Amino acid sequence: MSQTLPSTPRADGFFMPAEFSPHRQTWMLWPQRPDTWRLGAKPAQKAFSAVACAIAQFEPVTVGVNHNQYANARAMLPPQVRVVELSSNDSWMRDCGPTFVINAQGQTRGVDWMFNAWGGLYNGLYFPWDLDEMIAQKVLEIEQVDRYRAPLVLEGGSIHVDGEGTCLTTAECLLSPGRNPHLSQQDIENYLKEYLNIEKVLWIPRGVYNDETSGHVDNLACFLRPGEIALTWTEDKSDPQYERSAEALEYLLSQTDAKGRKLTVHTIHQPGPLFLTAEEAEGIDAVAGALPRRAGERLAGSYINFYFCNGGVIVPTFDDPHDAAALTTLQRLLPERRVVGIPAREILLGGGNIHCITQQQP
Amino acid sequence: MSQTLPSTPRADGFFMPAEFSPHRQTWMLWPQRPDTWRLGAKPAQKAFSAVACAIAQFEPVTVGVNHNQYANARAMLPPQVRVVELSSNDSWMRDCGPTFVINAQGQTRGVDWMFNAWGGLYNGLYFPWDLDEMIAQKVLEIEQVDRYRAPLVLEGGSIHVDGEGTCLTTAECLLSPGRNPHLSQQDIENYLKEYLNIEKVLWIPRGVYNDETSGHVDNLACFLRPGEIALTWTEDKSDPQYERSAEALEYLLSQTDAKGRKLTVHTIHQPGPLFLTAEEAEGIDAVAGALPRRAGERLAGSYINFYFCNGGVIVPTFDDPHDAAALTTLQRLLPERRVVGIPAREILLGGGNIHCITQQQP
Repeated sequence: MSQTLPSTPRADGFFMPAEFSPHRQTWMLWPQRPDTWRLGAKPAQKAFSAVACAIAQFEPVTVGVNHNQYANARAMLPPQVRVVELSSNDSWMRDCGPTFVINAQGQTRGVDWMFNAWGGLYNGLYFPWDLDEMIAQKVLEIEQVDRYRAPLVLEGGSIHVDGEGTCLTTAECLLSPGRNPHLSQQDIENYLKEYLNIEKVLWIPRGVYNDETSGHVDNLACFLRPGEIALTWTEDKSDPQYERSAEALEYLLSQTDAKGRKLTVHTIHQPGPLFLTAEEAEGIDAVAGALPRRAGERLAGSYINFYFCNGGVIVPTFDDPHDAAALTTLQRLLPERRVVGIPAREILLGGGNIHCITQQQP
Repeated sequence: MSQTLPSTPRADGFFMPAEFSPHRQTWMLWPQRPDTWRLGAKPAQKAFSAVACAIAQFEPVTVGVNHNQYANARAMLPPQVRVVELSSNDSWMRDCGPTFVINAQGQTRGVDWMFNAWGGLYNGLYFPWDLDEMIAQKVLEIEQVDRYRAPLVLEGGSIHVDGEGTCLTTAECLLSPGRNPHLSQQDIENYLKEYLNIEKVLWIPRGVYNDETSGHVDNLACFLRPGEIALTWTEDKSDPQYERSAEALEYLLSQTDAKGRKLTVHTIHQPGPLFLTAEEAEGIDAVAGALPRRAGERLAGSYINFYFCNGGVIVPTFDDPHDAAALTTLQRLLPERRVVGIPAREILLGGGNIHCITQQQP
């Protein structure tokens, strides 16, 4: 049975574990819409498949798909990846999927946040988003996991937790007028405390430059373990990313986590800078109500948008000179895991990366 | 993992257990199409919900639903019933769902028959049937059960097994030109032996009068236990059903089962006869390519179209003078189970009944 519970995770002793804690499986969605994904989403489908295959080496993977792509997804994905129908508007399981919480007895429940396509009628990326809004509930229903319905617009990519009481987020996103304009920063912090069962929120000012999610933290910075953070970086002071990364670094070094620890920050140099090519822009459908994609636009590329799975780390690569250093650094920082690079420019073209298209179920 | 296996259940030591054996759960689909179900399917949805609730007293139930009815199905069904997306053309899980097989070690696999909407372009009931055709695969994928793809058009409602080597079917249906006209009766029997792992097929000549499925056995006769069969019946020699039931009785009494046992046949008097009313016919959409429903048409009502679940028997009732006798007789014949009657005229109006809308997963 999957029931919608009237209480909150905090009240019931459930909390969101860190992504680097053990997973039961990974959830993904299948890319399809031709106004997000160029060339009828065929290159993106290949890239998503490569991500699913990489994760499946470490843990079970379920991919949700619209019915009219079911046969194609089933044919493109290997048999060890489970494919289920899950109607969606687009394919960002991190953002519309449930945030799973656990308790000390190892029971699992799910938080179903409100979803409005990264900004609703204010600055959302497409309309409608009715199917995405139902994804979390449907996932919990398939798994027969009880559900909390959080009265807050929030995407999973806008938060990270260390599993020990600390939440990492950006003010740019969580305080955006496209999310919860009726709530104060304190109100939002209180909701995060209730639904993630954390003690302290670290508010990095801004996310990655030109990130269409209003600056999701998961493209900028993440926990490697409690007390240690990885941060996307550039040495080029003329790059508009420079001041964003620098201000994040300064902020993080000035803070302590929920346990009172000072934070160690590891910088990972960004790829590129990367830009949308004319050929890539040409392959994308222009659709009323969806974000236009123009040749020459800066892409919000970052190696931080990687995904932890059981014993592994799946890292986006861009056929870029910085790829090797990013992979080497992450492998050095995470010696207990196997770091796997996956070519991910096609995912980036859709506006996110590997972390954005995955969701762990502990 | 759910793989499609190149072998057959018989080759691998798997067989179809009888419906009265223990179930892991029951699968159903959600009724929706307004050319099958009157008044926008609302009365049918109520009736299906009542069936799901009745079964859920005995075992878990999963209901598959098209995405545009997900919220409604979720709201109408109680929380203990699992709801998952499964796109379908109509709602007959018995006929388009998988036939589950087990082995001596209790492992489960599924047979995915070819489905052509009860007759394909010859005398099928609607077009297209592309989504129904994929239901079995999708169910097995959700459950991560390996799959056999049987090269035979067959609906689950056209066969019954006793779990001890005997299959019960009708020649009217399995030899219909709308199913497998290129195959001989012997060819079909060989496929049944391979995919159900049975030893003997009992070929009742015809099913229930005016049954739009070309005479599915599950509306006419079923095993109550090995060696014992229930058969729909009428005492009225002027009813066209009389000669069909009489010829079935004569045939069954002339046969032995796979174990060499003579068969005991219990007759259950049919309801009615029942006819489609003008008011009911009015509520059904006329759609090109779908079977028209005309006021005054004889309905293929039968109490035999009931469903075994763990410890229970869910029997259709029709607000008919014969209801009480049917329930009493079944309870007497099945004293080890609780017989539950569910008003099912709304299901019958769509062309089948409780057995047709359910599928057991052992």
